[in-house]
Amino acid sequence: MKHSAFRNSQDTFLSDALAGLIANHPDACWHDVGFIGRTTSLHTADGDPAVAVISGGGSGHEPMHAGFVGQGMLAAACPELLFTSPNAVQVSEATQWADQGRGVVHVVKNYTGDVMNFTVARNAAEAVTTRTVLVADDLATDGHEDGPGRHGTGATILVEKVAGAAAYRGDDVDKVAELGQRAADNSRSMSVALGAGFMPTTGRETFDLAAGQMEVGVGIHGEPGTHTEQVDSASAIVNQVLDKIVPALDLGQGDEVVCLVNGLGGTTPLELSLLFGEASAQLAQRGVTVARSLVGSYVTAVNMHGASFTLLKADAELLKLIDAPTAAPAWPHTLGRAKAVEPATITFQDELPTEGEENQWLTAFVERLQASFEALTELDRKAGDGDFGQNMEAAFGGIELPLRGTDTEILTGLAKRLLVLAGGTSGAVFGTLFNELARAESLDDGLNAAADLIHELGGAQRGDRTMLDALIPAAEKARELGAKNPDAETLQALFEAAHAGALDTEDLAAKKGRASYLGDRSKGVIDPGAIVVSWLFGGEPLSVR
Amino acid sequence: MKHSAFRNSQDTFLSDALAGLIANHPDACWHDVGFIGRTTSLHTADGDPAVAVISGGGSGHEPMHAGFVGQGMLAAACPELLFTSPNAVQVSEATQWADQGRGVVHVVKNYTGDVMNFTVARNAAEAVTTRTVLVADDLATDGHEDGPGRHGTGATILVEKVAGAAAYRGDDVDKVAELGQRAADNSRSMSVALGAGFMPTTGRETFDLAAGQMEVGVGIHGEPGTHTEQVDSASAIVNQVLDKIVPALDLGQGDEVVCLVNGLGGTTPLELSLLFGEASAQLAQRGVTVARSLVGSYVTAVNMHGASFTLLKADAELLKLIDAPTAAPAWPHTLGRAKAVEPATITFQDELPTEGEENQWLTAFVERLQASFEALTELDRKAGDGDFGQNMEAAFGGIELPLRGTDTEILTGLAKRLLVLAGGTSGAVFGTLFNELARAESLDDGLNAAADLIHELGGAQRGDRTMLDALIPAAEKARELGAKNPDAETLQALFEAAHAGALDTEDLAAKKGRASYLGDRSKGVIDPGAIVVSWLFGGEPLSVR
Repeated sequence: MKHSAFRNSQDTFLSDALAGLIANHPDACWHDVGFIGRTTSLHTADGDPAVAVISGGGSGHEPMHAGFVGQGMLAAACPELLFTSPNAVQVSEATQWADQGRGVVHVVKNYTGDVMNFTVARNAAEAVTTRTVLVADDLATDGHEDGPGRHGTGATILVEKVAGAAAYRGDDVDKVAELGQRAADNSRSMSVALGAGFMPTTGRETFDLAAGQMEVGVGIHGEPGTHTEQVDSASAIVNQVLDKIVPALDLGQGDEVVCLVNGLGGTTPLELSLLFGEASAQLAQRGVTVARSLVGSYVTAVNMHGASFTLLKADAELLKLIDAPTAAPAWPHTLGRAKAVEPATITFQDELPTEGEENQWLTAFVERLQASFEALTELDRKAGDGDFGQNMEAAFGGIELPLRGTDTEILTGLAKRLLVLAGGTSGAVFGTLFNELARAESLDDGLNAAADLIHELGGAQRGDRTMLDALIPAAEKARELGAKNPDAETLQALFEAAHAGALDTEDLAAKKGRASYLGDRSKGVIDPGAIVVSWLFGGEPLSVR
Repeated sequence: MKHSAFRNSQDTFLSDALAGLIANHPDACWHDVGFIGRTTSLHTADGDPAVAVISGGGSGHEPMHAGFVGQGMLAAACPELLFTSPNAVQVSEATQWADQGRGVVHVVKNYTGDVMNFTVARNAAEAVTTRTVLVADDLATDGHEDGPGRHGTGATILVEKVAGAAAYRGDDVDKVAELGQRAADNSRSMSVALGAGFMPTTGRETFDLAAGQMEVGVGIHGEPGTHTEQVDSASAIVNQVLDKIVPALDLGQGDEVVCLVNGLGGTTPLELSLLFGEASAQLAQRGVTVARSLVGSYVTAVNMHGASFTLLKADAELLKLIDAPTAAPAWPHTLGRAKAVEPATITFQDELPTEGEENQWLTAFVERLQASFEALTELDRKAGDGDFGQNMEAAFGGIELPLRGTDTEILTGLAKRLLVLAGGTSGAVFGTLFNELARAESLDDGLNAAADLIHELGGAQRGDRTMLDALIPAAEKARELGAKNPDAETLQALFEAAHAGALDTEDLAAKKGRASYLGDRSKGVIDPGAIVVSWLFGGEPLSVR
């Protein structure tokens, strides 16, 4: 068994978790007949008694329902064991507790057990005026004639929001139920899972899925979906999902929707964002506008790696209720609003000149580098994290030789390539070297300013097995010579100083960067950064031995 | 390879995800030099130009940083490739863009690459007044003398909140930086992981961990922690973590903290709540009060199954800034506030009478049941979901015989036990049967009312292979006899009718409940619910064959 969970024991998992959940909830306390109720009074925006909206269900879907208890959403939530319908007594007790004399609306997800227990609870709480909103949005469970019909999934939180907001503005019990049911009836969902969740109470996975397969139409408890298929691209998955939801809601040109892209518990926020971007763009292609969006893990299935897509066909009144303020802690702080999906790529503006005199000095440098990417990677793999060659290739790989232009122009262009295209520490360090050379009046000033700045940047000193072990000797030699320009004689002298420094790194243990974790194991290998510094002045490229 | 991810390609993963993220963000747009900037103007609460707080770092930690862009928090965020430091150009461009003439504060997590690139960026944006807040809260990386020192992890979002709120209220750049640094310096964190995350860009797991092991002190990129050990109880884990953090912050009697229990991406909200409950209770034992709490996945490591604990030693000014309003979408809607952790268990109040006459009728019924739990489970396993026997045991297992009291009293008590202790559909159905029998003036009325109500509850009809196949014949017989009380003759007649109905279920295919998925495979097995109904009137217990 690979998995485990944060728990004290399987038996106390839920009660321990609920205790912590309530301790972090600003407006909830536990009632030991089995429900979480608001601690502040249930009133409308005008301070009058309000219709109470309550919900409940098996645990394992957090933040639903408990996270949606709060002003403007739920008055109470009845949590049962993981993936187990609430019992009728906790629901009837919550109903009687919540009633302010204006009635109680039950938001019920369509599962046999939930429907039955809420029904029995209403019979038991017969003195209270109750209404039911049935949420049945999951298209994967559509069409089972004798079964309970479509299950309730992601749409539940939209329904809770709409009904809760209607209650808070003062609507009566019939109106609250009607609006909640309108939200439910106008919502459809579809889910896809790439991996199962782990049940902290039973120690089992929620389902089995072969490697590289995805479960299309999976339920929020791990119920089997409509089918299993090879994992497809996000774009194809979204297309398949929208092909189900769009016709089911009869969506077309000019329609507006609330779009909930919901993580089932183990899906990264980046994946959810990516799926939302796909959904929003594909809906736009179908003529449908995403008027409001929610992207996050709101209705989970323990930590299942999957996502559900819910669309609510919106009208002005439903949008107003979706937008109404609420204090429920799990409702998103702000919603997304109709906005086209635009590319988010970094555009790199190369500043290397394309005209001018051939620049022999810097052309020779880049030539040595371009012939050595693989060898640099190999050196770094032996005593580093292995990406130095790749970083240099990212910065210098695409440069067409010969370079043209003044030293300053080219040094500036190379610095930018290093900072942006190489990035990381090597990009910052070498970018700084080239920037300082570009700014300076002389090689002497440039090399010494760079050595100082690079020392300050990362705190490295000579002897720490870094590029400074070549740069500092070169800078010292330049100072000694009063070196102005990169003429052949100066370059030769600087090369000798830098090359000797680079060779010395073979005997040094790394103290900076990832190579420092290797300690003495980095000995016997020349530091690739130091070699690159020496190439600025001369030498031969390296080849893989 | 078991894992996969929602993506179109590894190469476009990040840009596709960022496009979706920004499309869902109400106040952000993409700048193609590589940063996300607010779309609304950067001003103070009074409408004056504000100090800009910006941050950035490798992606894979969402919602940090992009989700914290918004009024009262960040002006811009610079996202790089997953787990890769931002480059100096994107940071310097964001800095120059964000500056309103009042200066820019950089919130930098303490990693070599991040520190270097932010430094190079400040040098490049030399016309802008900049200040740096360095976040270095991770105790697992404390004490590496030559290394970069403690890494920056969960505390980052608290620092962003404090600095952002100070900027929004109009503080100058020095004051914003000073407050941000105070929040950073007063924060320490520690993380524990039970399972690795999956990198959508490389297809690799973030680390290897043997079954049943946990990584203590894991970093937010999957860096190895202080040690690996057997997975321990949540209580022991929290104790170990607090033993590091509490002395590091010199916390003692009377101190107040902001407590962030943060999921690393694949941890269920219930687990996080449980860990928070433990942390809050153990802090209380140490004399420390949790003045504010945040429990959720705010600083993730793709979808790693782990949690980080951050404590910020709070003072009045820091709390005021933590509490200040913000429009950043990922900041929690409401924070938890000092609240004792109380048990959240359901207290069951048994209503069975303990005194009175022996009740032979219902004692005989419970006797038959108590002798048959295993056999019922076996029947249900063959044609159902296997939990019927367990549910009956939950309701009837603990009852001491003989039962004492009137029929009405006992029927009421049994109904409550069924509804609460059995729960689910069987609890609701049998609870309803007993409730109706308790309410009714006669067996005839009770059985018929129950049959009607149970039909309404789940929509089952005679012949659907449910307990109604025994209940309806018994109710019909009771009507025929005008049955009033459970005398021997009446019970015998009802038993014969119910028993015959139960036996008939052997030839029926299930249409309701989970057994319905089995279709004809449920044939040949008697329905356990129907048997239990017949036992109300007579018959022998079942034993496992």
